[in-house]
Amino acid sequence: MKVVILAAGFGSRMQKDLPKPLVPLFGLPLIEHKIVKLKDFEIAVVYHDRRVAEYIRKKYPLIKLIYNPNPEKENGYSLYCARDFISDGESFVLLMADHYYGDRFYSSLKNNHRTILFVSDYCYQPEEATKVKVKGDNIIKIGKDLAEFDYFDTGFFICTSEVFKYIEKLLHREKIKLSDIMQEMAYEGKLFYKRIEDFWIDIDTVEELKVAERFIKKSLIKPTDGPISRSINRRISMMITPILVKFDFFTPNVITIFVSILGILVSFLFLFKYYALAGIMTQLVSIIDGCDGEVARIRNLSSKFGAVLDSVLDRYVDSFFIFFIFLSLNKDMYVYVALFLALTGTILVSYVSHISEIRPYFATRDVRLFIIMIGGVLSLLDEVFIQLALWVVGIQSHMAVFYSLIKKWTEEKRRITM
Amino acid sequence: MKVVILAAGFGSRMQKDLPKPLVPLFGLPLIEHKIVKLKDFEIAVVYHDRRVAEYIRKKYPLIKLIYNPNPEKENGYSLYCARDFISDGESFVLLMADHYYGDRFYSSLKNNHRTILFVSDYCYQPEEATKVKVKGDNIIKIGKDLAEFDYFDTGFFICTSEVFKYIEKLLHREKIKLSDIMQEMAYEGKLFYKRIEDFWIDIDTVEELKVAERFIKKSLIKPTDGPISRSINRRISMMITPILVKFDFFTPNVITIFVSILGILVSFLFLFKYYALAGIMTQLVSIIDGCDGEVARIRNLSSKFGAVLDSVLDRYVDSFFIFFIFLSLNKDMYVYVALFLALTGTILVSYVSHISEIRPYFATRDVRLFIIMIGGVLSLLDEVFIQLALWVVGIQSHMAVFYSLIKKWTEEKRRITM
Repeated sequence: MKVVILAAGFGSRMQKDLPKPLVPLFGLPLIEHKIVKLKDFEIAVVYHDRRVAEYIRKKYPLIKLIYNPNPEKENGYSLYCARDFISDGESFVLLMADHYYGDRFYSSLKNNHRTILFVSDYCYQPEEATKVKVKGDNIIKIGKDLAEFDYFDTGFFICTSEVFKYIEKLLHREKIKLSDIMQEMAYEGKLFYKRIEDFWIDIDTVEELKVAERFIKKSLIKPTDGPISRSINRRISMMITPILVKFDFFTPNVITIFVSILGILVSFLFLFKYYALAGIMTQLVSIIDGCDGEVARIRNLSSKFGAVLDSVLDRYVDSFFIFFIFLSLNKDMYVYVALFLALTGTILVSYVSHISEIRPYFATRDVRLFIIMIGGVLSLLDEVFIQLALWVVGIQSHMAVFYSLIKKWTEEKRRITM
Repeated sequence: MKVVILAAGFGSRMQKDLPKPLVPLFGLPLIEHKIVKLKDFEIAVVYHDRRVAEYIRKKYPLIKLIYNPNPEKENGYSLYCARDFISDGESFVLLMADHYYGDRFYSSLKNNHRTILFVSDYCYQPEEATKVKVKGDNIIKIGKDLAEFDYFDTGFFICTSEVFKYIEKLLHREKIKLSDIMQEMAYEGKLFYKRIEDFWIDIDTVEELKVAERFIKKSLIKPTDGPISRSINRRISMMITPILVKFDFFTPNVITIFVSILGILVSFLFLFKYYALAGIMTQLVSIIDGCDGEVARIRNLSSKFGAVLDSVLDRYVDSFFIFFIFLSLNKDMYVYVALFLALTGTILVSYVSHISEIRPYFATRDVRLFIIMIGGVLSLLDEVFIQLALWVVGIQSHMAVFYSLIKKWTEEKRRITM
């Protein structure tokens, strides 16, 4: 299926020196948020500002670039510039470079023989938005000043090539707005709608850019994030990620491997008894460990292999921390048991939460690494604290394992008696 | 939904002193194989021999027992005895106590307004079987001596209460066979069929009992079973399981916990340096560790909690083996590293095979415990062998972890390039 992204609008009210499609949102140009989510499609971008074309040509050479010499004729004319890109009878996705859309907009795109406007109950600036009035499956009215309306126009469409015929009827006009074309189609019963329940925003101001950024940040917090991650790590990792996403080199897997190597280097600090420094570095590892997942989400590079690699290397790094702390200590039976508890606990707790699908909120990796950090720093007072950290990590992990088992058991008992 | 099991047939050609429904198949009476698989249904058993009723009353007090005073009138009359159990217009499952059916027969039972005979392409004794000829959805002919036929009658039905009206028409006869009733229904276009692709057998002889037993044994071998499990452990555990299934007390979870306690006791043998004995006991633990799953399958007691409990306790037992071997050894850096490799490897390998869904055939638990057994026995020659076992277990586990990672990576690369 093909995609047309309209990026020929006039300059920006946000950054004078940058065309709007290139204004960065969480590190990535506005238009690129759309491109990465549509990577399986054949994309054409209608542009006017040469910098837009240059940026895309360099990074996405497969994308077709279509020049619109008359951006003042508005977005309907912009779409018309893409007429040769679409064959007769073909359907395509149409969206705006300066809008931000949540993932659900992209999740069910398929060919259709009708033109469908994606609509929403939600709009950030209702007074400026285009509204639609529907009847059955049809949109019967569309415009900014409808007295009565059902939904907001999100600017995200699945179009048929028919739409170009409607533009041709309006070619004599000085300005051809997309909503004018859609109004024509609606009059003739040719415009349908699909309601999407997800965030979207038309980004015109710095304020709207901030709103989109807040949405992205919220969406990056995983339900499995532990308390330290939510309160400390994510706040910092989300400041690093917008920098990382700028570089193609920093794929999620590269970041995962980099963090793991850093982790193993840190474990040598433990071995040589620089506990306080090692502890602080451990917290750093914990923080930037969040970046791989964030980059994967933003650049739409999530993969099953990446998730497996991340999980496995995390376990290795934790094991190295624990084993190298153990090696640095004077050995006695207490130290052996601490090693045993921490080493088995830290891997078992991840194993159990995977197979039981129960994840105790208190036994996440961020908490374990935080405990090691605390132990490391406190070892400035007394070396016993670093050994104590192993005990705490071990005991809380095994408690979590038993918690998961008991929870699973009661869940199943409840299901049987229900 | 209700179920009627016909168990009033005459004596057995297999064991003179036992009515056929009570003849044990893999430790469980023939009829009980059906009862355990239909535990969510309301069951009635039509019996003639009092021992059948006694057995069921004792073990399954909720099952309704219906006495058939005239078993010589054949199975159609047996079904007629259950007429008060079924309300007018109700549908029910009808099956034979002396047949064995694979799991797929039970997997899609639901109410139907038509009488449906489950048919099969397969039959162990084709010459003795009832055959059916179909046309569209209908069975048009049913009988033992059809010249042309499409499928075999498996004796497994979803019936409507209508079937009793057809029996009433035949009540004047001396013998009323089920196939006679079905013939009548087929004539009137009232008999439909469903093809089931699974094993089934009508058990009349010791030979047929053995065939069913072979099928059960084959179905108990899991695709995830490792080489030692296939070649040694399963052969022995399958001799123990038929004894265990006789006792209600031995639920899968009880067996799991029992094996784990035994495992922890065995690790003390390692601690006190009885390596050879401990090694042999380790192999025994490995063998009876298969029984919980087998009992779960036979008695239809599989549960997600049971699977989680088994996996977690297995990891604990293995960790204890390794840690207690470590404690028994003279400590040096080699021993520390051996402990680290074995302890992390043995848990990580299970973790990785769960999250990556790739299970290297050479790094299963049966193999790890077998290595420990070999190490234990060889330690009679030299104690270094028990330390060596830790190294081998550790190295092969971590090799398996890397193998899984690489396999996952190539899988994903292939999927992307395809």
